[in-house]
Amino acid sequence: MTGDRLKRQIEFIVEIGRLKHILRRTLTIHSDRNENDAEHSWHLGVMAVLLSEYAGEAVDVLRTLKMVLVHDLVEIDAGDTYCYSDYDPREKLERERRAAERIFGLLPEDQAGEVMDLWREFEESQTPEALFANALDRLQPLLSNYHTRGKAWQKHGVRKHQVIERAAPIGGSSPDLWDYARNLIDRAVSEGILSA
Amino acid sequence: MTGDRLKRQIEFIVEIGRLKHILRRTLTIHSDRNENDAEHSWHLGVMAVLLSEYAGEAVDVLRTLKMVLVHDLVEIDAGDTYCYSDYDPREKLERERRAAERIFGLLPEDQAGEVMDLWREFEESQTPEALFANALDRLQPLLSNYHTRGKAWQKHGVRKHQVIERAAPIGGSSPDLWDYARNLIDRAVSEGILSA
Repeated sequence: MTGDRLKRQIEFIVEIGRLKHILRRTLTIHSDRNENDAEHSWHLGVMAVLLSEYAGEAVDVLRTLKMVLVHDLVEIDAGDTYCYSDYDPREKLERERRAAERIFGLLPEDQAGEVMDLWREFEESQTPEALFANALDRLQPLLSNYHTRGKAWQKHGVRKHQVIERAAPIGGSSPDLWDYARNLIDRAVSEGILSA
Repeated sequence: MTGDRLKRQIEFIVEIGRLKHILRRTLTIHSDRNENDAEHSWHLGVMAVLLSEYAGEAVDVLRTLKMVLVHDLVEIDAGDTYCYSDYDPREKLERERRAAERIFGLLPEDQAGEVMDLWREFEESQTPEALFANALDRLQPLLSNYHTRGKAWQKHGVRKHQVIERAAPIGGSSPDLWDYARNLIDRAVSEGILSA
């Protein structure tokens, strides 16, 4: 039984290597190339470890970590949807739901269920862990955009009110991180790298 | 105080983005490009979640996860040392120790100490968590090499006995994963993608 179970786990582990080739619109901080979802997920993991003290409600760091590591796997099939583009949220969710079934379904049933629950919890963003994971998911690209002098914002004609709206979930988890984020957005405007 | 503490934490988070540009010799499974350390660390994180049942001694998954997420950060300064190359281990360790001091030292003192401890524990490879993290660190590139038809092995003239020696720490944590790994190496030889 170990044999078949492990075979399915490894098949999943091999398949999700595709996350390294799902590109985001954000650039990595130290280059001009687009970041991929695997790098982004790693960065959120380290942030979850270091910043959990700022979550408004105490979080289970292990659950948060599991959540950020798997939250973007559905994009292997469904692709990255640019947050500032026009898209149909119901169509996006349906695409992602199908992706979740195929990809998580590679795992043994118990683990498929666990990963599905983590993904749904992240998407529904109601628990302290999901709220905090979503806050990190909004803070990380904000840091990247600021530290690449707003190149992705400028390329896509993004303005301050859009960045504030996108970053708002940070405030849903952490007043301290939200203060930091708002301050960074103000600095971006005053430094001329984000349009007011 | 939150202000200065958070400023240091964010400075560290921005700095470690450099891990996305530290290239390994291994290719990603689904392309011909080299994998970077951030992608590799993310992959180990998911593996730690899914495969902890195979650790010979029970592991604290949270501690293992933290360890794999930070284990390669020293390579930001010290660079990736190819495992099959000739190198002076003392010189490598000294380079990495200096890197750890600079990079982890960006953090507030308590967290700098925590990350330093995690890195040292991984390097010393004595605790169940460190043994398991090291096992994953050897299994992941083996999967990549097998599923890219041994391209990196062939390019660097690596042979079976070297791959077995490199993979051996898997057996130090998990008999099941070690069986799987040895079987995969045998298959690689019989399929002609790894020289006997």
